[in-house]
Amino acid sequence: MSAWEMNVRRVVPYVPGEQPQFAEMIKLNTNENPYPPAPGVKKAIAGVSEDAMRRYPDPDASALVEAIANYHGVAKEQVFVGVGSDDVLAMAFLTFFAGGKPILFPEITYSFYDVWAELFRIPYERPALLEDFHLDVNAFLKENGGIVIANPNAPTSIAEPLSVVEEIVKGNPASVVIVDEAYVDYGKESALPLVDQYDNLLVVRTFSKSRSMAGMRIGYAIGSPALIRAMLDVKFSYNSYTMNAVTIAAGVASIEDDAYFKENVAKVIATRERTTKALEVLGFDVIPSQTNFVFATHPEMLAGDLFAKLRERRIFVRYFKKARIDNYLRISIGTDEEMDCLMKALAEILNENAVKD
Amino acid sequence: MSAWEMNVRRVVPYVPGEQPQFAEMIKLNTNENPYPPAPGVKKAIAGVSEDAMRRYPDPDASALVEAIANYHGVAKEQVFVGVGSDDVLAMAFLTFFAGGKPILFPEITYSFYDVWAELFRIPYERPALLEDFHLDVNAFLKENGGIVIANPNAPTSIAEPLSVVEEIVKGNPASVVIVDEAYVDYGKESALPLVDQYDNLLVVRTFSKSRSMAGMRIGYAIGSPALIRAMLDVKFSYNSYTMNAVTIAAGVASIEDDAYFKENVAKVIATRERTTKALEVLGFDVIPSQTNFVFATHPEMLAGDLFAKLRERRIFVRYFKKARIDNYLRISIGTDEEMDCLMKALAEILNENAVKD
Repeated sequence: MSAWEMNVRRVVPYVPGEQPQFAEMIKLNTNENPYPPAPGVKKAIAGVSEDAMRRYPDPDASALVEAIANYHGVAKEQVFVGVGSDDVLAMAFLTFFAGGKPILFPEITYSFYDVWAELFRIPYERPALLEDFHLDVNAFLKENGGIVIANPNAPTSIAEPLSVVEEIVKGNPASVVIVDEAYVDYGKESALPLVDQYDNLLVVRTFSKSRSMAGMRIGYAIGSPALIRAMLDVKFSYNSYTMNAVTIAAGVASIEDDAYFKENVAKVIATRERTTKALEVLGFDVIPSQTNFVFATHPEMLAGDLFAKLRERRIFVRYFKKARIDNYLRISIGTDEEMDCLMKALAEILNENAVKD
Repeated sequence: MSAWEMNVRRVVPYVPGEQPQFAEMIKLNTNENPYPPAPGVKKAIAGVSEDAMRRYPDPDASALVEAIANYHGVAKEQVFVGVGSDDVLAMAFLTFFAGGKPILFPEITYSFYDVWAELFRIPYERPALLEDFHLDVNAFLKENGGIVIANPNAPTSIAEPLSVVEEIVKGNPASVVIVDEAYVDYGKESALPLVDQYDNLLVVRTFSKSRSMAGMRIGYAIGSPALIRAMLDVKFSYNSYTMNAVTIAAGVASIEDDAYFKENVAKVIATRERTTKALEVLGFDVIPSQTNFVFATHPEMLAGDLFAKLRERRIFVRYFKKARIDNYLRISIGTDEEMDCLMKALAEILNENAVKD
């Protein structure tokens, strides 16, 4: 060990879903969108001038902030943008959870929350979900230094009704409550209508799922001007220019094409419903999903084995070797054709397994 | 004040140079490059597929990391890339300065260093520069929790010889020494040849100046594999995907065109030398520059007044109202035409001032 290592921050990093690079594969493991971004996005990217490339970008990313503000009918002082919702969430953790009291997030949820807490030395507690994977609301009404809830939750695909979110936000006026809505476009109710009423509510969104732009890294948060000001101060203490010129242009172009966006979302939801039924025909228990993935378990074959067998066929789904969910597969919704291939493969694998028994 | 504000991290953010948006102006205030990026960059950006946009980018940004590693003749395990060198430096502060002992950086240097230290609650000391703005080497040979040196330094434009850097790196085996080489392509000696010899040396570079890509946000660090591994662990605890698909492609295209790069650097250096002489003709004292800007003072007119008069003519230079440097202007090197306009304006302003006296 070198002497300088004494001063190093030791962490156990988040492990993202694998990004296999086969020419022929079906990739249903990282909740990407099977359809391209709005046609205007590629055009906007190609249209960025060399002058914009050589100059520093707008540190406020105003064009993108204003497009998002107009879209959601909020003031531009209520919008924060970042390099994917991970960047936005990391900044929010750094900004709002500095009080030293334990923050709260569910035991089963997006597995980056505890990584950020560890990185920034924020104490945390993880209340268990109920038996049916729903939120135990009472566990979030005790003293705390902040709260994070993914709604819809991942990897369970379950959304809590707005009344539950409001109860938690209202019951914690001394804490910032982050509601991570990465998947909300595939669900029913957003907490956005509450941001004007509760100045401690921060709603976080991403372009990675419903806007087909995971490769472009755009996320945002909407909250009270006071919350956004505090985040901006931290952001400007970290990196003045997080959003590059091309990304800003791409984001604006996506927001501008709402018809494409709605059609894209509707297609994924239709395929999700079709997929749920097809999985049930194969004997899976599928949690009713409010996201662009399904969370499913099979009574006759272990999820880990199914995962491995699918992988052999270059069909990639996500498997978490964690207590309570280690017999579930998280399957992203691809095109109808991709889901048909998955069903064919699953039918074969389950059949082989039945014959073996 | 809302109750949740007790838990908020309070900071005084860095203030970037202003980005005025006049159609007609001469912008010499943020050390941008007056020439476009290599022609391949725009092509590479336009060529990114919609498939690459909808999918998560390579979390390791391997294509860019490998291009940089090959270019500098180091292993890819020695390269870290980020969203501009600010992102790289912020990650380095977070990673390497966690020991609780005060870190050291010069009193006059890049004004983001103390902002990062404050953000991450890192104690720091700022040894004074010598009378001639050179580094006081002995001040960096006392006990510390880390060291940061910009070489060439900003806003002074002065570069220390490699022997000085080596003395500091060698004299501090228990500290990581960050050498911020944002401007080194306009100087003489890089510390890169030392990275294989000293595992506590991290050299940080940017695409924003010599590669004309401030708008694209690409920075990198080169160091021992142990240093880079520690930074990557922190990066993967913060945001798995910092570099988007388009940025990776743009960065690779820039590295590939070395002839363009060298020509671009040579043009800026030639204009810098010409500018230095022209400023001296107008009576300025100009510090011999190793950067893409000059740092100059005039015996007969206050820098603050010159700054304001230039601003009225929509010529933007940088002025820092700080002890010891508050009578200097930092002037970025533009095209020869832009510098001619600047000289004409300065001659007029100085002339008006002389008549007034």
